Amino acid sequence: MNPTTYRTLDAAAIRALVAGLPAIASRLGGPPAQWRVREVSDGNLNNVFLVGGVKGEVCLKQALPHVRVDPTWKMPLDRTFFESEWLRAVQPLAPGLTTEFLHYDPELYVLIVESLSGHTVLRTALMQGARWPGVALRIGTFVAHASFGTSLLARPFEDVFTARRLFSANLALTRITLDLVLDDPYRDHPRNHWHDPALTPIVLDIRSSAATLLAVENLRRRFLSQPQALLHGDLHTGSIMSTADDTRVIDGEFAVYGPIGFDCGMFVGNLVLHYFATPDNAGRQATLHDIAAFWHSFHEEFLTLWTSHETPPPGTLRPLAYGPAARVARQRFMNEIMADTIGFAGVEIIRRIIGYAHTADFDIIADPRQRAACRAGALGFAYHVLEHLDEIRTMADFLRHLAEQGRAGLHEPR
Amino acid sequence: MNPTTYRTLDAAAIRALVAGLPAIASRLGGPPAQWRVREVSDGNLNNVFLVGGVKGEVCLKQALPHVRVDPTWKMPLDRTFFESEWLRAVQPLAPGLTTEFLHYDPELYVLIVESLSGHTVLRTALMQGARWPGVALRIGTFVAHASFGTSLLARPFEDVFTARRLFSANLALTRITLDLVLDDPYRDHPRNHWHDPALTPIVLDIRSSAATLLAVENLRRRFLSQPQALLHGDLHTGSIMSTADDTRVIDGEFAVYGPIGFDCGMFVGNLVLHYFATPDNAGRQATLHDIAAFWHSFHEEFLTLWTSHETPPPGTLRPLAYGPAARVARQRFMNEIMADTIGFAGVEIIRRIIGYAHTADFDIIADPRQRAACRAGALGFAYHVLEHLDEIRTMADFLRHLAEQGRAGLHEPR
Repeated sequence: MNPTTYRTLDAAAIRALVAGLPAIASRLGGPPAQWRVREVSDGNLNNVFLVGGVKGEVCLKQALPHVRVDPTWKMPLDRTFFESEWLRAVQPLAPGLTTEFLHYDPELYVLIVESLSGHTVLRTALMQGARWPGVALRIGTFVAHASFGTSLLARPFEDVFTARRLFSANLALTRITLDLVLDDPYRDHPRNHWHDPALTPIVLDIRSSAATLLAVENLRRRFLSQPQALLHGDLHTGSIMSTADDTRVIDGEFAVYGPIGFDCGMFVGNLVLHYFATPDNAGRQATLHDIAAFWHSFHEEFLTLWTSHETPPPGTLRPLAYGPAARVARQRFMNEIMADTIGFAGVEIIRRIIGYAHTADFDIIADPRQRAACRAGALGFAYHVLEHLDEIRTMADFLRHLAEQGRAGLHEPR
Repeated sequence: MNPTTYRTLDAAAIRALVAGLPAIASRLGGPPAQWRVREVSDGNLNNVFLVGGVKGEVCLKQALPHVRVDPTWKMPLDRTFFESEWLRAVQPLAPGLTTEFLHYDPELYVLIVESLSGHTVLRTALMQGARWPGVALRIGTFVAHASFGTSLLARPFEDVFTARRLFSANLALTRITLDLVLDDPYRDHPRNHWHDPALTPIVLDIRSSAATLLAVENLRRRFLSQPQALLHGDLHTGSIMSTADDTRVIDGEFAVYGPIGFDCGMFVGNLVLHYFATPDNAGRQATLHDIAAFWHSFHEEFLTLWTSHETPPPGTLRPLAYGPAARVARQRFMNEIMADTIGFAGVEIIRRIIGYAHTADFDIIADPRQRAACRAGALGFAYHVLEHLDEIRTMADFLRHLAEQGRAGLHEPR
């Protein structure tokens, strides 16, 4: 971890590094001089390269000492360490739903994983009109397995405490989530921005709604004080790569222990953004269906893991109540996750429209007025959800409200 | 931390150790050969010595590689490290309410603090009939300041996460709490025991009450997954030394981040044990008053800290909602602590009567049948509270039930 050995790698340095890793070199095949090294950096934070040989390809990710898209925003390098630890923790729990871990270099903060060059970033695929009903199901499976398997339900508390210790050192990225998702948008802060003046009245309403602000304060506290399971921490549709049949969760550098509904809410919130950016009713119906399918899949798989007859490791909490009482306990826990999911979806939508880091979803709408109206629809929906969080307690309520507000805001040719 | 240098210290070794610590040696005064070294080990876990010279006295505590009262129960030495870290964290927050930290030796697992030889263990004092109304108030102040000051309300989340990391390594003692307080008593386990067959029907009722078992499962999960503040972790009346005017919290080796109501509940639960062990109505009324005073003091002091106009350090969560909405948020948080207090008081009472580690409170009752009846009263009360946790939501409810059940079980001469 000696910081003096860190240097930002260029293509030649990457080739030399990989050439020194026999298992990866043989996976690529051929002489290193013939490997193709392509930069494909896309996210806000890191340099990403694909390295390809005659036999195969790998993906190399290196942390920079600053935010990639803003070099004045300094940032510690260790985020790649947390991503690597996250991947090693969840890959065995959710086989085939992440990338394969290949190598981590603790001095260069380089992580090497399998390449997914045949996959598309889910957000991009959705914007291109992909209808892949399996994706939401697979993400539900992923969150169920990754969260259950890192929670007190599956492991002795000693293991959970030890994992929490590791990930609670991920301070810089947790600070980003806290500030950008759960704080800035609710204040007058220079990092916030939105293009359309039509949104300003909604922003002012949000910031003066006591119920909304209390809901956000509560979510903020839950994010920091409800370490139920290891979260991905940034599970938006840009952290997922997919084909119609194969879906992988990537970019776990925000990993931290937190409320399971945080990951669910990030994913649902980003589907809602896509929903409001979709101009046609059929597309919107498909997205409603995706959200319902995600939740159903997560819910069922989580409960199946919980009630399976596999014996957990010695030292894991054993139930005290059995039979109908145990069902009550499980339902309470799932309801807590559901309430968190709805709340965190709300804050994710808001911060993606008026905060620092927007998403591309609405860019497919050519007409600026229509684009503003669609953004206003999403923002108004999230505001409505957060203001009425005590009433919108189930995913069915959430979807009903979404369908209603979505119909009202639909800008189809009539 | 080299374990090879650890050895259990005898009087001569203690004299030599302290002689090598100039600040403490000068506090004692006179030549080391003339210091009195007295063993006063009293708790279940550690060796404790008082070392006195012509000018002063200090208290030296050394961890043993096993439970002091059961050498076959092996235990890591590092509990003294956690006690030392706890003391250093809370002493500045609650001045005059702990012992003064003087020295910690990480190789010998020795902690040296000021001696409280003029003080009495609170449990003993209560059994001797002491009426010290200031004690409960001061413990309320202690818990308010120690918990507020180590929580997200007073410090940037980075500091809280870092402190959580440190104390979440306190696995051995957290395991003891989990097993002895929150698990064993609700099963048939060889560590459980109770003298009086009269208690057996209540034990069987508790273990077959779905509502009670669900409540305990929920408290168990909250204990492990609600790291609101640095807890003392074992705040019973044997962890407090007092005179009428001066009260000190000692023995912080169980320190861990957890729900604030855990500490409140331990203290309240132990006052309830004393309540049921008190044969006369006036004594019981005094204890009711102590419980009410403790809660009032904790509640008011915590809120005063929260609403004071002191500026917290940069990076501390800033409220989003102000005015009446902020009052609602504070009240919700205090209600959560209150519900935890009531629940954890219930489990503490139960484990102290049917679990591994009993308390001496009931030993003052000479008549075995009366003693059994008083224990049954306490156990039945705790069972009632846990079974009706959804209804007993305020300390006023709790105290009303306690007064009712206490009157019913009073064994006064008539």
